[in-house]
Amino acid sequence: MNGAESLVQTLTDQGVDICFANPGTSEMHFLKALENPLMRSVLCLFEGVCTGAADGYYRMKGTPASTLLHLGPGLANGLANIHNAKRASSGMVNIVGEHSASHLKYDPPLTSDIEGLARPLSHWVRRVESSNTVAWDVAAAVKKASEHVGQIATLILPGDASWQEVGNPVMPVVPPREVAAAKAKAPGAARVEHIARVLHSGEPTLIVLAGHATRGRAIELAGKLKAATGCRIATQFFSARIERGAGRVTLERIPYAVGQAVEYLQAFKHIITVETTEPIAFFSYPDKPSLLKSPGTSVHELVEIGEDGVAGLEMLVDAVGATNTRAVLQQRADATPPTGALGPASIAQALAAALPEHCILVDESLTTGRETMGLTVGAAPHDLINNMGGSIGYGTPVATGAALACPERRVFCMVGDGSAMYTIQSLWTQARENLNITNIIFANNSYAILKAEYANMGAGAPGERALAMIDIDRPRIDWLAMAKSMGVPAVSVDTAEAFHKAMANSVNESGPCLIEVRL
Amino acid sequence: MNGAESLVQTLTDQGVDICFANPGTSEMHFLKALENPLMRSVLCLFEGVCTGAADGYYRMKGTPASTLLHLGPGLANGLANIHNAKRASSGMVNIVGEHSASHLKYDPPLTSDIEGLARPLSHWVRRVESSNTVAWDVAAAVKKASEHVGQIATLILPGDASWQEVGNPVMPVVPPREVAAAKAKAPGAARVEHIARVLHSGEPTLIVLAGHATRGRAIELAGKLKAATGCRIATQFFSARIERGAGRVTLERIPYAVGQAVEYLQAFKHIITVETTEPIAFFSYPDKPSLLKSPGTSVHELVEIGEDGVAGLEMLVDAVGATNTRAVLQQRADATPPTGALGPASIAQALAAALPEHCILVDESLTTGRETMGLTVGAAPHDLINNMGGSIGYGTPVATGAALACPERRVFCMVGDGSAMYTIQSLWTQARENLNITNIIFANNSYAILKAEYANMGAGAPGERALAMIDIDRPRIDWLAMAKSMGVPAVSVDTAEAFHKAMANSVNESGPCLIEVRL
Repeated sequence: MNGAESLVQTLTDQGVDICFANPGTSEMHFLKALENPLMRSVLCLFEGVCTGAADGYYRMKGTPASTLLHLGPGLANGLANIHNAKRASSGMVNIVGEHSASHLKYDPPLTSDIEGLARPLSHWVRRVESSNTVAWDVAAAVKKASEHVGQIATLILPGDASWQEVGNPVMPVVPPREVAAAKAKAPGAARVEHIARVLHSGEPTLIVLAGHATRGRAIELAGKLKAATGCRIATQFFSARIERGAGRVTLERIPYAVGQAVEYLQAFKHIITVETTEPIAFFSYPDKPSLLKSPGTSVHELVEIGEDGVAGLEMLVDAVGATNTRAVLQQRADATPPTGALGPASIAQALAAALPEHCILVDESLTTGRETMGLTVGAAPHDLINNMGGSIGYGTPVATGAALACPERRVFCMVGDGSAMYTIQSLWTQARENLNITNIIFANNSYAILKAEYANMGAGAPGERALAMIDIDRPRIDWLAMAKSMGVPAVSVDTAEAFHKAMANSVNESGPCLIEVRL
Repeated sequence: MNGAESLVQTLTDQGVDICFANPGTSEMHFLKALENPLMRSVLCLFEGVCTGAADGYYRMKGTPASTLLHLGPGLANGLANIHNAKRASSGMVNIVGEHSASHLKYDPPLTSDIEGLARPLSHWVRRVESSNTVAWDVAAAVKKASEHVGQIATLILPGDASWQEVGNPVMPVVPPREVAAAKAKAPGAARVEHIARVLHSGEPTLIVLAGHATRGRAIELAGKLKAATGCRIATQFFSARIERGAGRVTLERIPYAVGQAVEYLQAFKHIITVETTEPIAFFSYPDKPSLLKSPGTSVHELVEIGEDGVAGLEMLVDAVGATNTRAVLQQRADATPPTGALGPASIAQALAAALPEHCILVDESLTTGRETMGLTVGAAPHDLINNMGGSIGYGTPVATGAALACPERRVFCMVGDGSAMYTIQSLWTQARENLNITNIIFANNSYAILKAEYANMGAGAPGERALAMIDIDRPRIDWLAMAKSMGVPAVSVDTAEAFHKAMANSVNESGPCLIEVRL
C-alpha cells in the first residue's frame, strides 16, 4: 500500500466516502487510489465547483466531504467557495497535491506557498511529511472537519508521500465511529435564567436563530417560546440551512437592506442570540450604521456559536414553563399557480405552488428573490440554503453537493445570471452524475443588485460607463445554448404560468434541467 | 475628488489606462471613478479572466494593466492566473475592494484576510489607510509593477478610503514618465569573458534564453553567437513570449518530457543561461531526475533574471568577435495546407500555413500541440506565448488581454478542451469588446495529458474509475453551443483542410470566433 492508498482508505474508514476532484499530474497516485470502490469520486471541471459541492454536501449530510485539488493554483480556484463554506460552518477535507519534497527546492513553475494560500480560509493546515504518517494526518483532518461547528481542514500531499510505500504506518488513534460524535456543550444555567427573566419581562424581544438552531427540534422549541411569551423568532437574513414550509414553525427574516433592518429591529427592546451574533450590515455604506439594532436595545447571548442550540432552547423552554405549550405551525398557503407577468411576487408565488414536499431550495437569487422569499413560507415543507459568505458563484456548486447528499430529494437552485456565470461548469457535473437539480436562472442581464448598491453608497445614478460595468446584456447570454453545451436540457419562460409549469415538469424526470426566467 | 477618483486619475497619470474589472458593492465609488474617459474599463464575468487578461496585456505591451476585484474571494478567484503572470514576470496592479475600516471589526460575511491571500502570489501588498494617501499608494503600486522584471502589486482599497474626499493629498514623487524607465543592469565583464572562453573552447554548448531575451535584438545576437561559434541556442520548454517565424533567428526548444529533455541536454558540455536558470523538470516523478542536464555538464550564468539580457548578449558577441557575423535566418516553410486526418503534425502544418503575418499565438494546447510546435517555426513571423505557471485556464484570458494590447493584430488561442473550461467566461468579454481572437479548442474530450502522466508516474494504465476522472466525454461538451451562449460565432472541423480553411477565414472578419477541432 502506498501513501495515496493509505489516505483514501483512511478517509473511507473515517466515514468520508465522497471526493470532489479536479486532479493534475502530481495527483496520479491519488487517482489510482480512488479505484477504491468505497470512495465515490466526482469529477468537476473547475475547483470552485469541487469546494462548493463539498459545502452543499455538508449542509445536507452534516458530515464532511473531501476535495482533491491540484497544487496552490488549484486550491486558489477553490478558495471563494471555501470562504462561503467556512462562513456556513461547513466542514470539509481538502487534499491539495504538491511537488515531492526533493523537487520543491528547484522552484518549478507550479510551486507556490500552499500553506500561505490555505491558511487565511482554513481552520487547520498540515503538510504530509511521509507516506507512513498519511493515515494519521488525514484522520486528524477528518476529526477537525467533523467538529461540532464544521471546520475547513486542508492537507497538503507531496508526490513522494503519495507514491512511496507505507512501511511503518502511524495509525490514527481515534476510533472511526467516534469522529462524528463531537458533542457541543450546553450553555450555563445562569445565562438561561437571565434570559428567562428577559422573556418574562414582557418587553418586546426577538430571538435570532442560526447554525443548527434553524431546523428540527430547535425551531419547535422556538415556536413554544413564541407562543408562551409573545416574543418573536427570526433568522439572520442568511442562514446555512432552514427547515421551513407548511406544518413547521416559521421564522421571520431580518431584512438585508440596512434601512429596512434598522426599522425592523427598532421594535425590540431585547435581542436574544442562538448560535449567532447580533445583526450587522453585510456591507458598510457612508452614513449608514454597521450595527443594526437600536441604541437602546440589549443583546443577550443564549447560545454561543459552537454551543448546543437545542440544549440551550430546551433549558429556556423549561425555565419559562413552556414545555407543554403548543407552537403555532405554518399553514399551507394557497397553491394556485400565478399567471401573467414575471416579477418578484409572481415568481415567489410560482415557487410556493411548485415546490414539491421535502425538496431543497438553494437560493442565490439576489435581486429577484431577496425581498420576496417570505412569500414561499407556506409552500410544502422544504429546506432552504443561503450563501453565508457573500462570494457569488456558490449556488450551482452547492446544489450539486446537496443533490449528491440527498439523491432522493429534488434540488431547486435559484441563481441570478451574473452569479451563475462564476461557476457555470457545475452544469457539466450535474449532467454527468444525473443529479436531480432544477437550475433556475433569473436572467435580468445585469448585476442588478449593484444598481441599488450604487445608490445606497451615495454614488447617485450610474453614468453610462459605470452602467456598462453593471449590465451584462452585451452580449446577452443564451442560457439555452449554455445548458445544451454541458448536456443539460433547458427551457426559457417569460410568464408566471410558464415558470410554474416548467418547475412542476422538472420533477417528472430524473437528472438536471435549467429554466431561464427572462426578466 | 474622492479617494476612488484620485486612484483612477493617478493610474492614468502613471500610464495605466486599462482596468479589467469584476466589481461588487464595496467598489461602487471606484465604478463611478471609472467614468474617467482616460481609463478603459473591461468587464469580465469571472476574476480569473481579469487577471489572465492583465497578464496577456503585459506580455504584448510591456506595461502593467490594472484589475478591480471584489474583496478576498474576488482576489482568490483571480489568484491562479496571478500565479501564471508572476511566473511569466508580467507586472500588474490589482485593486482589491475591502470593507471600510470601521465595519471590519464586526467581521461581516465577506471579511477575510486579504493581505494573507495576496501575499503568497504578490511581490508587493499594501492597504490604503486614507483617501489622502491613495494617489501615493497606487503610484507605488504602479512603480513596483513596472520594474524591469514585472511584479505583482496588490493594493487593498477599503470603502471609506474610496468614498471619502481627498483633503490633503500625499502626491506621488515619481514623475509619471520615469516610472517605466527602470533600467536593468548589464552583467559584469568578468562573467562575460569567462563565458566567451567557454564558447571558444569548441566544446558543445547550449545557450538557453528566456525573459526579454527571446525576441528582437536578443535573438539576433544569439544567432550571431551560433553562427560564429557553433553553439546551439534554445529556449526552455515554456517562454513568456517568443518572436519567431520566417526571417527571424530560430531558437530550439528543450523538450517537456523528462526522458526527452535529458537526452536532448546530454549532448552539451556547457549550458549558458540568459535571464533564466538551468532546465528543471516541470513535475517530479518517481525515479526521474529533477535537474535535466547530465552530471558532467557545467552551467554558466551569463545574465541573471532581472539583468539586461540584450546588454549581456551584446557584450558576449563583442567578446567572441562576432559583431559582423550574420545570423542564419529561418526560411519560410512550404505553406501548402495539409489535407486528411487531424493529428498533431497536420494540425501544426495547418497552423504554419494559416497564421497571418504578425499574429499572436497563445498556446495552451498541452497534448495536442506540445511536441509539434516546432513544425510551425517556418510560419509567417509571429509572437508565441506560453503558460509559465502551469495553472491551466490561462489561454483564453491571456488572449483577451493580448488582443486589447494589440488591436491591429489577430490572436490565435490554441487551447485544450479541459483547460478551456476553467475560464470559459473569457468568450463573453471577447464578444463584448469585439476582439480579434480565433479560439481553437482541441476537443479530445479528455485531460489527455494525464493519461501519459499516469504512466510516467509509474502508476501503470489507469483503471476504469481512474479513467473516469481523466476523460471528460460524459457528457461531451458541445463547443458550438458554448460559443453561441456567449455570442461568439463558431465552427467545428474534423479534417486538416477544414481546420486550415476555418483559420484562414477567421481573419476576414473582425471580432472573435471559435473553432472546435474534433479529435
